[in-house]
Amino acid sequence: MPEIRQDPVSGRLSLIAPERGQRPTDFRIPEEEEIENVRCPFCPENEELTPPETLRLSTGEGPSSWQVRVVPNRYPALRPDADNGAGDPFHRLTPGLGHHEVIIETPEHGKSLENFSPEELDLVFRAFVLRAEAFLQEGRWRYALFFKNRGRRAGASLSHSHSQLMALPFIPPLLEQELARAEAFHTETGECLFCQLVEKETSGPRLIFESENFVAFQAFAPRQPLETWIVPKPHGLDFLTLREDLRREFCESLLRVLRLLERTLPGLPYNFFLHLEPLGSPPLPYFHWHLELVPALTRVAGFEWGTEAYIVPLKPEEAAEFLRTLEP
Amino acid sequence: MPEIRQDPVSGRLSLIAPERGQRPTDFRIPEEEEIENVRCPFCPENEELTPPETLRLSTGEGPSSWQVRVVPNRYPALRPDADNGAGDPFHRLTPGLGHHEVIIETPEHGKSLENFSPEELDLVFRAFVLRAEAFLQEGRWRYALFFKNRGRRAGASLSHSHSQLMALPFIPPLLEQELARAEAFHTETGECLFCQLVEKETSGPRLIFESENFVAFQAFAPRQPLETWIVPKPHGLDFLTLREDLRREFCESLLRVLRLLERTLPGLPYNFFLHLEPLGSPPLPYFHWHLELVPALTRVAGFEWGTEAYIVPLKPEEAAEFLRTLEP
Repeated sequence: MPEIRQDPVSGRLSLIAPERGQRPTDFRIPEEEEIENVRCPFCPENEELTPPETLRLSTGEGPSSWQVRVVPNRYPALRPDADNGAGDPFHRLTPGLGHHEVIIETPEHGKSLENFSPEELDLVFRAFVLRAEAFLQEGRWRYALFFKNRGRRAGASLSHSHSQLMALPFIPPLLEQELARAEAFHTETGECLFCQLVEKETSGPRLIFESENFVAFQAFAPRQPLETWIVPKPHGLDFLTLREDLRREFCESLLRVLRLLERTLPGLPYNFFLHLEPLGSPPLPYFHWHLELVPALTRVAGFEWGTEAYIVPLKPEEAAEFLRTLEP
Repeated sequence: MPEIRQDPVSGRLSLIAPERGQRPTDFRIPEEEEIENVRCPFCPENEELTPPETLRLSTGEGPSSWQVRVVPNRYPALRPDADNGAGDPFHRLTPGLGHHEVIIETPEHGKSLENFSPEELDLVFRAFVLRAEAFLQEGRWRYALFFKNRGRRAGASLSHSHSQLMALPFIPPLLEQELARAEAFHTETGECLFCQLVEKETSGPRLIFESENFVAFQAFAPRQPLETWIVPKPHGLDFLTLREDLRREFCESLLRVLRLLERTLPGLPYNFFLHLEPLGSPPLPYFHWHLELVPALTRVAGFEWGTEAYIVPLKPEEAAEFLRTLEP
C-alpha cells in the first residue's frame, strides 16, 4: 500500500509506492555508453588538456606526480568575471558570478571511488576544504558546494573519477529551506532537528550502520530508491575545520556506503553532495552538516517536474534491512 | 557569460550557462530502447490487459471501438483504499490515498501526440475533465493532476501514446509555492502575476507565438533547454469548465508547440503537465491555469539534487528565436 511521507529536514513529499514488489537488487542499471575522449584530460601526462590547476596535492615534484588536482571547469555554470545581464523587478537576472571547478580525484584512470583507501578519499575532501577556504577569503561568495556525479545517467560526462565544487553568490534554495525549517523547529522545541534525527535514525529501521561519530541511514522520504544520508552525531562540528581523525572517520563511513551500494547494484550511477552551513556562518544551534547520496535509478518525469514531490517504488526500511544483511 | 535567473512564478533559480555554444538543434537525443510488450496493453482488442476502464470516449458500440480510454494505473502511486501507515510528529506519514489513472490517448499504436488532430487531442483533455469532475464529486481530493511522459528518457514505460492523471489528497508543493507567490504579488501590487506574465511574454524575446486567447513562450528561468509554457491570456478562465472553442484553441496551441519541438529535435523526450487551481477552488484573482512542458535533454545531477536550482546550457531567448524561424 502506498504511503505519503514528508522529509523532516526539507519538508519534501515522497509517495512510497512499492507496488511492483521491487527489491533493492531489482533495479536495472543501463549499460554505460563510453563516449570517452581518446586522450583523457584527467590522466597524468595530459595536464595541458585542462585549464591551469587551482590546487594540487602531491607527494613528488614531477609535473605528473600529483594525487589530486583541482582545475576550473571547462564549461563553467558560473564565472568570477561574469558581467552581463540586466533584469527587471519582474524577471530577475544577475550575472552568473562564482567559481566552478573540478576535483580530479585520482591519477588512476579506471579507479572508482568505492575502491579508494580512506587516505585517498580524505585527500579529495582536503582539496575541497582548501578551495572553500580560498573562496571564503575572497569574501564574495555565500556558499561552497561540493557534489559528485558518477556515471553518465547521473550526469558525469567523463568516466575518470572526479567531483565538482562551486563558489555560489547565493545560498542554494534547498539549503535555505533546510535551514529555515531547522531554525523553526529549534524555536518551537528548543531542540536541534539534526540531533533528533541522529537519535531517531540510530535506533530506527532505516539504520545502515553507525560509527563513533557518524550515522548512515536510508532517507525517510527519499527522492530515489536507496537514497542514503550520512550525518555526524556530535552537535557543532564544522566541516571546513573538522579534526583530521573525524574527517577520516567520515571518509570511512562514505566508503562503507559506496561499497554496500556497489554490492547491491554494480555500476550504480549516483550523485552525492555535502550540505554545509553557508560560508562564514557562525555555529548554528539547529544544524549539522551532512552528506546526501541520491542514486540515478528512476526517471524524473511529469509527476516530479509538475509537483516537486517524488514517487519512489522501494520502501526505505526494506532497503536498509537489505543493506544491513550485506554488512560483515 | 552565465546568468542567474529567478522564475517569476515559482521563484526557482536557474543558471543559464550557454558556454558550449550549443544551439537548439545540437542536443543529442539517445535512441529509444524498445522494450515493448509483445502485446501492447493499450491497443484495441487487448482491453483485457488493463484493469477495467473508468471512462471511455467512443463513436461506436463495439468493445474495441473507442477513441480514448481511461484505466487505473497498474502500478499506482496512490490508491483510494490505502489504509496503512502511522507516522509520528517527526517522521510524518499518511496513507497513500488517491487515484492514479492512465489516459490511452488513441487506439492507433504508433501515433505520436504531435500528429493528433485538434479534435483528437481535445478528447484527451475532455477525458481528463470528466475524471477530474468525478474526483471533485467524491469530495475527498484536493488536486487533479494531469501529466504526460513521452519517451523512455522522460519516464514513459510504454510507447503507445498515453498520459496520466491523479487525484491527490494534498496540493502539490510546487503549486503551493506558485499560489503563495502569486497571492503575495497580488497583495503587494494589486495585479495578477499571470496577467503581467502574459503581457510581458506576448511582447518579449521569449515569445514563440500567440493566438487570440493563448500565448506560448520559452520559460525565462527554465529547468531544461527548450522548456515551454502555454498560458491563457484572459483572466478568470477555469480549465474544468472551459468553453469548447477555447479548449480547442488550447489544443491547437499545444499541437503547434509539439510540432515545432519535433521539427527542432525529432523524437524529443518530454514531460508536460497542467497547473490548475486546487479542486473546488473559488476563482482566484491572482492565478491563471497553464501548461508547462519540460524536455528531457540534460540530466538532473548533483548540482540540481543538492541545490534545487538548475543549470541550463541554452538561452531561452535564443531558443525562442530559433523556434520562431520554423513558424510558417
